[in-house]
Amino acid sequence: MICVLTGGTGGAKFVDGLSQVIPAEEITLIVNTGDDLLWWGLYVSPDIDSITYALSGMLSRERGWGVKGDTFLCLQAMGQLGEPTWFHTGDRDLAMHLLRSRLLAEGKTLSEATSTICEKLGVKARVLPMSDSRVETRVDTPSGELSFEEYFVQRWYQDPVNSVRFAGSSDAEPAPGVIEAILSADAVIIAPSNPITSIGPILSVPGILDALRSARGKVAAVSPIIGNAAVAGPAGILMTAQGLPCSIAGVAKAYEDFLDLLVCDTRDTRAAEALRQNGLQVQCAQTIMRTVDDRAALARTVLSHAISGLLSEQSPATEAASEKSAARTAVEQP
Amino acid sequence: MICVLTGGTGGAKFVDGLSQVIPAEEITLIVNTGDDLLWWGLYVSPDIDSITYALSGMLSRERGWGVKGDTFLCLQAMGQLGEPTWFHTGDRDLAMHLLRSRLLAEGKTLSEATSTICEKLGVKARVLPMSDSRVETRVDTPSGELSFEEYFVQRWYQDPVNSVRFAGSSDAEPAPGVIEAILSADAVIIAPSNPITSIGPILSVPGILDALRSARGKVAAVSPIIGNAAVAGPAGILMTAQGLPCSIAGVAKAYEDFLDLLVCDTRDTRAAEALRQNGLQVQCAQTIMRTVDDRAALARTVLSHAISGLLSEQSPATEAASEKSAARTAVEQP
Repeated sequence: MICVLTGGTGGAKFVDGLSQVIPAEEITLIVNTGDDLLWWGLYVSPDIDSITYALSGMLSRERGWGVKGDTFLCLQAMGQLGEPTWFHTGDRDLAMHLLRSRLLAEGKTLSEATSTICEKLGVKARVLPMSDSRVETRVDTPSGELSFEEYFVQRWYQDPVNSVRFAGSSDAEPAPGVIEAILSADAVIIAPSNPITSIGPILSVPGILDALRSARGKVAAVSPIIGNAAVAGPAGILMTAQGLPCSIAGVAKAYEDFLDLLVCDTRDTRAAEALRQNGLQVQCAQTIMRTVDDRAALARTVLSHAISGLLSEQSPATEAASEKSAARTAVEQP
Repeated sequence: MICVLTGGTGGAKFVDGLSQVIPAEEITLIVNTGDDLLWWGLYVSPDIDSITYALSGMLSRERGWGVKGDTFLCLQAMGQLGEPTWFHTGDRDLAMHLLRSRLLAEGKTLSEATSTICEKLGVKARVLPMSDSRVETRVDTPSGELSFEEYFVQRWYQDPVNSVRFAGSSDAEPAPGVIEAILSADAVIIAPSNPITSIGPILSVPGILDALRSARGKVAAVSPIIGNAAVAGPAGILMTAQGLPCSIAGVAKAYEDFLDLLVCDTRDTRAAEALRQNGLQVQCAQTIMRTVDDRAALARTVLSHAISGLLSEQSPATEAASEKSAARTAVEQP
């Protein structure tokens, strides 16, 4: 079993790749819900949506979010009614939000609603929200405190950032299964997600950090930073705001409490060497995922390093999984 | 001021015509809400929707319901999620339900939500739900009791009908403005709607029947029955179930407590004569509304008979409105 902590479009791409490399049944995802928002009265969970769409083959690979081939007529009509339209909700995408909102209104937890939706869409991986409690990522800017989606989508992350906090986290509990998945996984992988606003909210839920420290498998992270810039989005800005250097050293620092292995881009070979001298295991790989094959290749690389210890111990289950995935990807490759 | 009691597609067509003939500001609509349903967790009010769409020029004239040119991708996606799809909600149409549901969730009444939506869509007529309380039309069939939309849309009104009731009506109050609109109108028009399930729910709200009896203007109804059949839908079946003949005599009987004038189709000239001999004022006209001009012509005819008394008294306001509308329709006619 592989456990992945994920959020954002980088996370969805990586998970897309991972699901090509090992059977989906062997993946448990712990997903950031700090971006969740009430939109048009509906409960929208952007990172759970992206992961669910990625795993069901519905994700728009062009946009990196939402449903492929979607249209936006309801959005237009909402604009005509004077409602906000900055969060682009497609017509097909709305079905997800409608169903989840109804399930929550009926008293289901976010975990239960997520599990129901995944089952209906044939998603075989286990998708767990980080918590069933509301934890909200709040970005403090000179214009006031913004929700993450206000900061990121509505205002195009143009505001200077003073700090980031996770409102509600101190009272939150990990969703059922989260701690067990981390503790028992053959490897825990931190996806190439924003360390502050995608992984940060997950780490802010009491109990999760301790579980990562106690995990029996290796904890590996894929850096979303190459050189001194994020591959996409505001990761660099937010790391700087939180006092971390925007570099693979900053990523290593964000995860220093529990990290066993960092996978960074081949362009960071020199910086990797510096980290190795500090005692961290670091592997360089092609981390930019332009194509579907890039995604699978990165997932395979991370996996091979993260579970190498297990493989050398000849764990039959893991070997079988590894062979299966190798056979599968061999077929898919051109 | 003209007050119209309305529901269903016949009602929406008639109101569409009426709004071509007199200024919308002079129309108050009292709309059936007995068909309202929770659909995908959203509050849908089919008759308020149809009237609002008719008055904002958004109504699909082909279908008689929903938004013209709408698409149904969310509906398809809901089907893929295993959700019911028998109630055809278009992508643009969803905006109406989303906004209304949000306003209701915020504590607004149905009247307030309706008024807000009408204002946003530039609807100048006053659209009043019959009540802000929930009154549900329930159709008793051998297969059990059904909501009106289950009976009508989901099951294509194929079930034999034992009886119809309006659950919640005894505790309901007319929405603000309803009684005043009926009492003070220059004429009250009952649209060519189903007497049992479109007008019946309105009449079931305590106080409305008394107001109709005390109205200072004439109360005129347009028959939705021609000969022994409804122009469309299950009006005939339901009238029979409620012990009324399926004929203009049945329509007259349904409204006997307050009716001053019945407008029926020219094909019912003989039946009209029989009703006249019983003391009811009856006018024959072309009541089938195939074209936009048919709608306006029927509205003009009904209006001319319903407010003839007022016209002969030389009411300046009504005369002005009448001239204005004559000028307007003259321009529109080919």
